[in-house]
Amino acid sequence: MATLASLKRAGKVVCIGRNYADHITELKSARPKQPFFFQKPISSILLPGEGPVIRPRGVDMHYEVELALVLGRRLKDFNAEDEKSALEAIESYALSIDMTARNVQNEAKRKGLPWDIAKGFDTFLPMSKLINKSAIPDPHKIEVYLTVNGKVRQDDSTGLMLFRIPRILGDISKVMTLEPGDIILTGTPKGVGPVVPGDVMRAGIRVDGKELEEARIEVA
Amino acid sequence: MATLASLKRAGKVVCIGRNYADHITELKSARPKQPFFFQKPISSILLPGEGPVIRPRGVDMHYEVELALVLGRRLKDFNAEDEKSALEAIESYALSIDMTARNVQNEAKRKGLPWDIAKGFDTFLPMSKLINKSAIPDPHKIEVYLTVNGKVRQDDSTGLMLFRIPRILGDISKVMTLEPGDIILTGTPKGVGPVVPGDVMRAGIRVDGKELEEARIEVA
Ligand SMILES: [Mg+2]
Ligand SMILES: [Mg+2]
Ligand SMILES: [Mg+2]
Repeated sequence: MATLASLKRAGKVVCIGRNYADHITELKSARPKQPFFFQKPISSILLPGEGPVIRPRGVDMHYEVELALVLGRRLKDFNAEDEKSALEAIESYALSIDMTARNVQNEAKRKGLPWDIAKGFDTFLPMSKLINKSAIPDPHKIEVYLTVNGKVRQDDSTGLMLFRIPRILGDISKVMTLEPGDIILTGTPKGVGPVVPGDVMRAGIRVDGKELEEARIEVA
Repeated sequence: MATLASLKRAGKVVCIGRNYADHITELKSARPKQPFFFQKPISSILLPGEGPVIRPRGVDMHYEVELALVLGRRLKDFNAEDEKSALEAIESYALSIDMTARNVQNEAKRKGLPWDIAKGFDTFLPMSKLINKSAIPDPHKIEVYLTVNGKVRQDDSTGLMLFRIPRILGDISKVMTLEPGDIILTGTPKGVGPVVPGDVMRAGIRVDGKELEEARIEVA
């Protein structure tokens, strides 16, 4: 069973890019024909109370709020049509912020270089407490939101995902075997933007309009 | 102390790109002003006897032989000038093959997408046994080689690295804290090329002209 501490021993953190149409538009990115993904190192994980997020010098740092899955089963060549098994493979959820060095990422894109530096700095993955599966009956029917200094910046339904969780697990596991404890970030809705030191980010999840206590992130 | 089995529980595998001038030339890549790096998932590790390397359908699969370091210390903002501490931070060595889906990587470069799929398929990281530090008195003064079906394809001195180990550890650890057990791949010399199912790769290390038994990789 995953615990908060065990998140930092995850075998890998795999993140889906461009999984909400309006976020693709705001970054002027191309819409992917299939899910693509990248890794964040486990050294970037920031658990509740471990803040602040450290902005590396010269970095234009953006937040991206995302629903995270913690897996409970090994998946290899998973059948994306099998929605039931996909949900069964999830052990718990968490909320996460995929912090991104946007200027570093833009330069990497321009030069055709890997994204690992832009995505992988220490503290670049704030996470909430673990969320019991029973609290999220349908992961495609919740709202994730993020505020900066009290202003709402992101607030959308996970129903807007271009590629839903079974497809995500199918595509990743055709490349990399997924193991129990692995963490999957499912992409960010529109509204990403910069934060500077001193800004306070708060993020959360609503299920049927009701705030999930354990999903709250508050980090400077 | 790292063991062969513990490699698959490494916190991360970080790989340096473009670290030998002649390899940069052969791929028509730009010479980096500073080391850049990417991750391979630990699920891609293939220990001795676990072969073969599986070629995913439609993939042009290339070998890249590389000296790997297994760390014994935590490093954060490591000082690249401190050659002595850099070598002390290494717990052991291994030889590795950074298998790469070259056509997938080329498309990722063209589109500005992450390299994780191209580099991260299951079986894409064959490794040798662990090599005791005492067997490699100077990691910048050994030869790494790789043959395909008995023909020598790569054979160069690690003295040709553009960025040496202290600099590599410095640059990575300014982004990501490195932890004991983390694995670092130091880049590949010239001579990379395709392999197809049935090809047999053999790779090894020579120290002062003498073959290191524990560094041998033989994989189909
Ligand atoms: Mg691990
Ligand atoms: Mg993201
Ligand atoms: Mg390589």
